[in-house]
Amino acid sequence: MDEMVIRGEIVHVIDINCDMGESFGEYQLGADAEVLAYVTSANIACGFHAGDPGTMKKTVRLALEQKVGIGAHPGLPDLVGFGRREMKVSPDEAYDLVVYQIGALEAFVRSEGGKLQHVKPHGALFNMASVDYTLSRAIAEAVYKVDPGLILFGLSGSQLVKAGKEIGLKTASEVFSDRTYQQDGSLTSRRKEGALIENPREAIRQVVRMVKEGKVTSIQGADIDICAHTVCIHGDGVNALRFAEQINKTLLQEDIVIKRIGEFL
Amino acid sequence: MDEMVIRGEIVHVIDINCDMGESFGEYQLGADAEVLAYVTSANIACGFHAGDPGTMKKTVRLALEQKVGIGAHPGLPDLVGFGRREMKVSPDEAYDLVVYQIGALEAFVRSEGGKLQHVKPHGALFNMASVDYTLSRAIAEAVYKVDPGLILFGLSGSQLVKAGKEIGLKTASEVFSDRTYQQDGSLTSRRKEGALIENPREAIRQVVRMVKEGKVTSIQGADIDICAHTVCIHGDGVNALRFAEQINKTLLQEDIVIKRIGEFL
Amino acid sequence: MDEMVIRGEIVHVIDINCDMGESFGEYQLGADAEVLAYVTSANIACGFHAGDPGTMKKTVRLALEQKVGIGAHPGLPDLVGFGRREMKVSPDEAYDLVVYQIGALEAFVRSEGGKLQHVKPHGALFNMASVDYTLSRAIAEAVYKVDPGLILFGLSGSQLVKAGKEIGLKTASEVFSDRTYQQDGSLTSRRKEGALIENPREAIRQVVRMVKEGKVTSIQGADIDICAHTVCIHGDGVNALRFAEQINKTLLQEDIVIKRIGEFL
Amino acid sequence: MDEMVIRGEIVHVIDINCDMGESFGEYQLGADAEVLAYVTSANIACGFHAGDPGTMKKTVRLALEQKVGIGAHPGLPDLVGFGRREMKVSPDEAYDLVVYQIGALEAFVRSEGGKLQHVKPHGALFNMASVDYTLSRAIAEAVYKVDPGLILFGLSGSQLVKAGKEIGLKTASEVFSDRTYQQDGSLTSRRKEGALIENPREAIRQVVRMVKEGKVTSIQGADIDICAHTVCIHGDGVNALRFAEQINKTLLQEDIVIKRIGEFL
Repeated sequence: MDEMVIRGEIVHVIDINCDMGESFGEYQLGADAEVLAYVTSANIACGFHAGDPGTMKKTVRLALEQKVGIGAHPGLPDLVGFGRREMKVSPDEAYDLVVYQIGALEAFVRSEGGKLQHVKPHGALFNMASVDYTLSRAIAEAVYKVDPGLILFGLSGSQLVKAGKEIGLKTASEVFSDRTYQQDGSLTSRRKEGALIENPREAIRQVVRMVKEGKVTSIQGADIDICAHTVCIHGDGVNALRFAEQINKTLLQEDIVIKRIGEFL
Repeated sequence: MDEMVIRGEIVHVIDINCDMGESFGEYQLGADAEVLAYVTSANIACGFHAGDPGTMKKTVRLALEQKVGIGAHPGLPDLVGFGRREMKVSPDEAYDLVVYQIGALEAFVRSEGGKLQHVKPHGALFNMASVDYTLSRAIAEAVYKVDPGLILFGLSGSQLVKAGKEIGLKTASEVFSDRTYQQDGSLTSRRKEGALIENPREAIRQVVRMVKEGKVTSIQGADIDICAHTVCIHGDGVNALRFAEQINKTLLQEDIVIKRIGEFL
Repeated sequence: MDEMVIRGEIVHVIDINCDMGESFGEYQLGADAEVLAYVTSANIACGFHAGDPGTMKKTVRLALEQKVGIGAHPGLPDLVGFGRREMKVSPDEAYDLVVYQIGALEAFVRSEGGKLQHVKPHGALFNMASVDYTLSRAIAEAVYKVDPGLILFGLSGSQLVKAGKEIGLKTASEVFSDRTYQQDGSLTSRRKEGALIENPREAIRQVVRMVKEGKVTSIQGADIDICAHTVCIHGDGVNALRFAEQINKTLLQEDIVIKRIGEFL
Repeated sequence: MDEMVIRGEIVHVIDINCDMGESFGEYQLGADAEVLAYVTSANIACGFHAGDPGTMKKTVRLALEQKVGIGAHPGLPDLVGFGRREMKVSPDEAYDLVVYQIGALEAFVRSEGGKLQHVKPHGALFNMASVDYTLSRAIAEAVYKVDPGLILFGLSGSQLVKAGKEIGLKTASEVFSDRTYQQDGSLTSRRKEGALIENPREAIRQVVRMVKEGKVTSIQGADIDICAHTVCIHGDGVNALRFAEQINKTLLQEDIVIKRIGEFL
C-alpha cells in the first residue's frame, strides 16, 4: 500500500499502467488513444516483440499529450511470438537488449520534449525475471546504467523488484486486478484453475483492498501482504476500455488518488 | 580544408573515420580492435543493417578505451542486404529509423560513461541522402531533435551537409581517398570506369591535397574545390590495416594533425 | 477476354483472386475465412512481407476447404513496410527470394494434400516487375524452375506477363476493378487524380466489359484492348466483403462464369 | 552399427554429415566448398538461424556438384542467437517452422535438378527434441507430411529417432566423434568436465568402434550400445578441415565404407 499527504491528509495513491505501442507497420493493435484517458503510465513497446520506430514516435506523442508517464517496455527478440515465448537468453544478452531498447525509446521521448519515467520488461522476459535473480540483476543493471533515475516496474514481491532495489533503483511493485494469488505471493499460473478473476467488480475490489490494506486473499484462503504501487490493465479486447473506466471510477469513489508513479514514489 | 591553431601556428587538421561494429551474433566482420589504432572517429552500426546489442556494447567499449570519437551509423532495415540496397523509405520513415538507431547506440555510450559525438548514415541511406534534400532534411532533423550537439557526417558538397547546416547542426564534410571525383564534386559512380583509385600512394596523395589545398582534380582533369573535415577508411579486407597505417604516417609526415572531429570542428 | 465452352456454348469466364494470409503472429489482418466464399484463387503471403508459418498453414487449410486455387504471394523482405516499399534488389536476389517463398508455401500446400496453382508477386515487387523486363525474367525463371506447371499472375500487358510467356509459363493477365487505365494500358498512378474508381457499380461495370469485350475506356477517353483472366479484389476494409459479394452476383447475372484460373487457362 | 553387402562381403558403412550454408548476406561462415570433399551429407541452413536465399542456392549447387546428399537444417527463428538459444516453441509452432524451412530449401534443390535426402533440426531445436517426445513427434510429423521419403536425422537413442520411426520415417542415428557419452546413452553436457574429446585420434577411434562394434565406452567406464548411421563433423574452425581429412582417411583404412545415408539406409 502506498500513501501520500495531500493538504494535510494521508491518502492512498496508485498508478495505473498499460502496455501500448504494440502495433507494427501495417498491423494495428490496441486502442491506445482511448485507453490513455484511463492510465497514468504507458509501457511502450520498443521494436523487439512489437512496435516499430513510427509506432513508437506516434505513441510517445499520444502519451505526452495526455501527460501520461512514459516507460520503455523491452521484450525478447521474438516478433512472431510477441515476446511471449521464453528464450534462454544469458544475463549479458538480457542486459544488452534492455539497454538497446531503452535507448531507442528514450530518443523518441527526448526528441519530443519529454522524459522517460520507467522501464517494465515485457512478457516472457518479465515472467522469467520475476523468479530469476541473476536475470533480474542484469536487467536492473541495464536500467541503472542507462539512467539511475528510471523507475523499474516488477511484479510485487518478485526477484526483479528485489534486484532493482539492491542496485539502487526506485522500484514500482505491480499488482494484477484479474489474477489470483498463491499463498507465497506469486500469481496462480494461467494453466491452473482459478487463475483468472473474471468478474470485473471482484477484480476491482481486490485492487482496492491491496491499495488500502496492503493485503490480498490468496487462492488458499488466507490473507497475505502485498505492495501495490501500480496496477496493470489491458489495452485491447472488447471489454478493456469499459474495465479501464470502471476501475478509475471505483478507485476515485474509494478516495484512492490515481497518479503517475513518478509523482509519488 | 580545415585548420586549427596549435602553439601559435596554423596547422591543417583532419579526422579519420571508419565503419565499425558490423559483426552480428555469430558472424564476425572487420578488424575493429586493430583499426581503432588508426582512426579518430568510429561509426558504429546500430542493428538495422548490421550490429546487434552485444556487438554495439563491445564496440563502444573498444572505442572508449582508444579515446576514439563515437558516432551512430544508422542504416536501412535490411540485414541481408547490409543496408546497401536502396529502399524507398519516406522522409518520415527515415526520420524515425534514425532517431531509433541513434537512441539505441547512445544508450550504450552513456551507460559506458561516454558521450556520442556524431551521426553518419550508412550505405544506401547515405547515398540516397547525398542527392536528396528532402530525405537529408528528415535525417538532419532526427539528429537535431535527439541532440543538437551531435555532428552530422555527410559527403563533402552533398545535400546532407547542406540540410545539416540549415537545421543548425555542425556538419563534417567527408572525403574519400580511394574514389575519383566528377567535375560537379560528386563521386564517380562505381559502375563507371576510373571510379576507384587503386594505388594507395595516389589515394593518400589525393587526401593530402584535399586537406592542405582544399582541391581535388576531377576525373575530367580540372581542379575543383572540396572541403575535407574527415576521411573515410575501410576496416576490413586484407589491405585495410596496412592502408590505415600508411595514411596515418603520411598525413603526419605532411604536418597534418589527425584529431577527432569533435575537438576541432 | 477469355472464353470457354460449356455444354456446347461459348461463355466468358474469369477468375477472382484476393491476397490472403497476411496476418502475422499476434497481428490479425483481413477477413480471410469470409472472403474465401467469393474468390476462386487465393494469393497467400509467404513470410517476407507478411504471414508466418502458422498463418500460412491455417490459410492453406481454409483455401483447400473452400476448393479455392492456391497461389504463392512472394514479397520483398520488408515486414515493417508490408513489402510496399521499392527495394533495389538485383535480378539474382529476386530469383532467390521467389524460389524460397514458393517453396515455403508449397510445402504447406503439399503437406495438406493440395497442389499449388499459381504465383503472384506482392506489392512493390509486383509493381517493379510490371515495368522491368529483367526483373520479370528473373521472377519468371524462379517460378519455372520450381515448377513449370505453375501459372504466373501479372498485370495485364505487363513485362511480367511477357517474361512469363517467353520462359514457357502459363500466365494470367490480371485486371483491376477499382483502378483507371492510361492509354498505354498501364494503371493510372495512385498519386494522380482519377486513379481510383470509387463507385462500386462503375468498378464492376468496368470488369464486366473487360471480360466480355476485352476493352476498357482509358482515362483519356478512348477504348483500349485489355486481357482479363483474373480480377483482383481486396480482403480487408469495411466494404471489401460487400464488394466481393456484389461483383460475384453481377458477374453471374452477366452470364460470366467464375472459375479458378487453373481450370480454364 | 550399420552394414551393407558389397560384392558378396558384409562391410561396415557410415555417412559423414556437416552443417553448411550458414553464411548470411555479407557474412561468411564455414569453408563449405572445401569441407564438401570430406562429407557425404550436407545439412543446409534454411534462413531462420542462419542462411539466406542466395546462400541456400549457392550451397545447394556446391553440394550437387560434389554429389553430396542434401538435407534441410531447420532452426529456431533466432538469427542473432544462431538458433542456439532454447525457445519455448509449442509443438504446433515447431511443426510449422519445420514445414516452412524444408519447403524453402527443397525448392532450391528441385530447381537445381536435385532431390532432398534428409532433415536434421539445428542447434537448440535438435537438443530440445532429443529429450522431448512431444516436440520430436511434431517435427517428425512435419517431415513426414512434406515428404514421407525423407530421412530424419537424430541423436542416436534420442526421442527424435524414436518419434521418427513411429511416424513411419527412415531415421539416421547420429553419433559424435568429439563428445563423450553418459551411461544412459546421452551426451555429457558441455557444462560438465570431460564433455569434449580433444584428441583427434581418440575422437576418430571412438567413431570407428561405434561403427564396427556398435559400442562406446561411457564416461563412467562401461560399454554401452550405440547405433551409428552418420557422424557429424564441423565445418569451421582452423582444425575442421584437417580433422575431416583425417577421419575420412582412418575410416577407409579401417575398411569402413563412407556413403551418403540415402544409399544404404
